[in-house]
Amino acid sequence: MTIPEYININFKTDFKEYHELPFKVTKKTFKKGTVITSYGQIERSAYFLISGLIEITVLKDTEDKIVEFFLPGCFFGAYTSFLSQQPSDVQVSALSNCEVEVIDYDELQNAYKTSLVANQLGRLATESIFIISTKREKDFLTKSAQERYDELLSKRPDLIKLVPVNKIAKYLGIHPESLSRLRKNIS
Amino acid sequence: MTIPEYININFKTDFKEYHELPFKVTKKTFKKGTVITSYGQIERSAYFLISGLIEITVLKDTEDKIVEFFLPGCFFGAYTSFLSQQPSDVQVSALSNCEVEVIDYDELQNAYKTSLVANQLGRLATESIFIISTKREKDFLTKSAQERYDELLSKRPDLIKLVPVNKIAKYLGIHPESLSRLRKNIS
Repeated sequence: MTIPEYININFKTDFKEYHELPFKVTKKTFKKGTVITSYGQIERSAYFLISGLIEITVLKDTEDKIVEFFLPGCFFGAYTSFLSQQPSDVQVSALSNCEVEVIDYDELQNAYKTSLVANQLGRLATESIFIISTKREKDFLTKSAQERYDELLSKRPDLIKLVPVNKIAKYLGIHPESLSRLRKNIS
Repeated sequence: MTIPEYININFKTDFKEYHELPFKVTKKTFKKGTVITSYGQIERSAYFLISGLIEITVLKDTEDKIVEFFLPGCFFGAYTSFLSQQPSDVQVSALSNCEVEVIDYDELQNAYKTSLVANQLGRLATESIFIISTKREKDFLTKSAQERYDELLSKRPDLIKLVPVNKIAKYLGIHPESLSRLRKNIS
């Protein structure tokens, strides 16, 4: 999926070409392992993932903790930094070769001043990312590792298939060996 | 602050009366201790807090865990349930007598179809609530209880003044006695 397709599906519009959109969109690719936005950097781009796999981490002392993964068909980035234009406390990395669309910060802020579609899109993308991130927080407060793994398996099976098992363990906040036990409990 | 004032400040508009807004706003009061939205309820309202103090909790077995507090001048509610129209996994309660403004779900969705200002408002309110909730998640992953208390003290001193100490401890995810120790370390 691309940004024009995402907009057409959600807002019953009919954008056929990029130049019809209320902001400029450019395409970009990242090789597997690329750090797209690093800790301390001010995020100047909103990204839409066409293909590939994205990881968001935070730094605890010298250890990366995984906050979120993103699969194709959604917006991603160091979004708090993008909104506040303050240095990022998260790092955004490509876990595989990625194809993305990019909207520049100034372009988007300009479009927000006058464009209904730009604001509808910004609202929807922020709502989606809010639902994902608060769900994770609530799950950590209320569910066991087993329950969180079971739910990941049923709700986001693609993630289990695509993400290396040691990273799934990190994401769930458990040791890789504990994850092996949880997986045996399932089978 | 009221919703028209919030909109005027953020979008340089000049709304003087409620009927000029692109959606209906009603005023309501809640007595201290009122459960505004209960677990399992589908949230049909977006609330703006004019005065008072709001608490959001999740349920772990039979224990309430505090997810967030809201002070006057911002939107609140069981927002995931509001967006998804699924049963709420959070409870919204009035910790003191509260004066609020209310926007009905259908009213807002209708306004979102055509109104620039409604979408600008929805986007900004969601951005603000996203920044607050993800900050809390990142802090839990990367900071000690002492660091989280220090930051609360410096960034949200009103909260420390207004919220009972046992609730601050719950919010920080620590025992009330540990919080007493942290407070002594400060003084």
